[in-house]
Amino acid sequence: MKIKLTVSYDGTDFCGWQVQKNGVSVQEVLNDAIEKLLGEKVKTVGSGRTDAGVHAEGQVVSFSVENASVPPKNYAKALNAFLPESVKVVSSESADEDFNARYSAKRKTYEYKLYRSSVVLPLKERYAVRVEEKVSANKIAEALKEFEGEKDFKAFSASGGGAKTSVRTVYSATVAENGKDLILRFCGNGFLYNMVRIMCGTALAYAEGKISLLDIKAMFQTKKRSLGGKTLPAKGLTLVSVDY
Amino acid sequence: MKIKLTVSYDGTDFCGWQVQKNGVSVQEVLNDAIEKLLGEKVKTVGSGRTDAGVHAEGQVVSFSVENASVPPKNYAKALNAFLPESVKVVSSESADEDFNARYSAKRKTYEYKLYRSSVVLPLKERYAVRVEEKVSANKIAEALKEFEGEKDFKAFSASGGGAKTSVRTVYSATVAENGKDLILRFCGNGFLYNMVRIMCGTALAYAEGKISLLDIKAMFQTKKRSLGGKTLPAKGLTLVSVDY
Repeated sequence: MKIKLTVSYDGTDFCGWQVQKNGVSVQEVLNDAIEKLLGEKVKTVGSGRTDAGVHAEGQVVSFSVENASVPPKNYAKALNAFLPESVKVVSSESADEDFNARYSAKRKTYEYKLYRSSVVLPLKERYAVRVEEKVSANKIAEALKEFEGEKDFKAFSASGGGAKTSVRTVYSATVAENGKDLILRFCGNGFLYNMVRIMCGTALAYAEGKISLLDIKAMFQTKKRSLGGKTLPAKGLTLVSVDY
Repeated sequence: MKIKLTVSYDGTDFCGWQVQKNGVSVQEVLNDAIEKLLGEKVKTVGSGRTDAGVHAEGQVVSFSVENASVPPKNYAKALNAFLPESVKVVSSESADEDFNARYSAKRKTYEYKLYRSSVVLPLKERYAVRVEEKVSANKIAEALKEFEGEKDFKAFSASGGGAKTSVRTVYSATVAENGKDLILRFCGNGFLYNMVRIMCGTALAYAEGKISLLDIKAMFQTKKRSLGGKTLPAKGLTLVSVDY
């Protein structure tokens, strides 16, 4: 039987989604909980890796089980009894046998949170990155427009992602303003390694007057990462949902 | 010279505002930073104690300094260099010699955050308390109305506060709905020990159908704490601002 889980986590204290030798990963914690529940080891597949410190509201995970004693709908509650507060299964269901959380994914949505303040605000720091008060939502929106469409995002990726092609389609890249907060939202058919964090850093560099829209256009033409802004920190990033 | 600071903190890892023998308090951390900056020990006064785990966006602190070498406006930036990320001075200014953050306070505003979900959501848990999905903002608002006005809040206080009178005026008690979140907001001339957390627990008990509005009215008449709801956890509570 194939099981599909929707998982939320606070990534602050994890070395990322994927099992690694150094540090505790979300996948390892989830695998342990499944093994405790079922008494069998399973091979979990996530919709994609999230880096160390990146959060998720709706990471999707699939796995096959021999043991069919737990009804699919009940996995959420049962696994949550074995999971720490920082990782919880939001919902669970059965899926087609050929369902694979990674390869079946059609669309992913990420959010990146910034807050505008002249000083560090302790209650914002865990899930958002501080920027100068002058950063305008309109300027951010102008830059984000440049990211929409089917494009070669090579200049917006870090090495080490191992993707076969750097062409991706970003269906929408928008910003919402909520008081001091700016919430940047990206929906696309996939994202390269560090791509969202580099797009955010580049949009920010434009809003700060450090680069122009022509520089962003040139990044697509020349594929030069160096023309863009910084790769913003992991803590501002959340994988919101994955569509299939 | 009298200095007035507005201080924000994430209370999660502190034993509260006030210096205590067991555990690290916000006041201790702030005192240490002031001593490092000025080379003199000062006696800080907070607008009020916040309990272990309670947060602040705008705690107000006053102290007198002999050393007048630091301009009042510069205290924020200077102290922040010595403070951890969990405690920061948002602004600083000079104040009248008779200003006292505690005794001069006229009005305080607190917020309490709830989120509605059938499962624990890791990204909400740090600053909010989970309640059932069925809890309605309208029901919470009905209960909160009962708290407005000048009343004897004896039934809404824990022992140990040491206040001379339990009569307080709550100018407003309202709730804002934001998706799954419910933000309860209280503005009053002062609050007894645990008063906000007991009012929140009592409003929640009403919204859950466990008690009636008559029970809340009876709490004011009989002064019996036992008629109300639970004292909700500290982590949902934030001291938003203090007016003088």
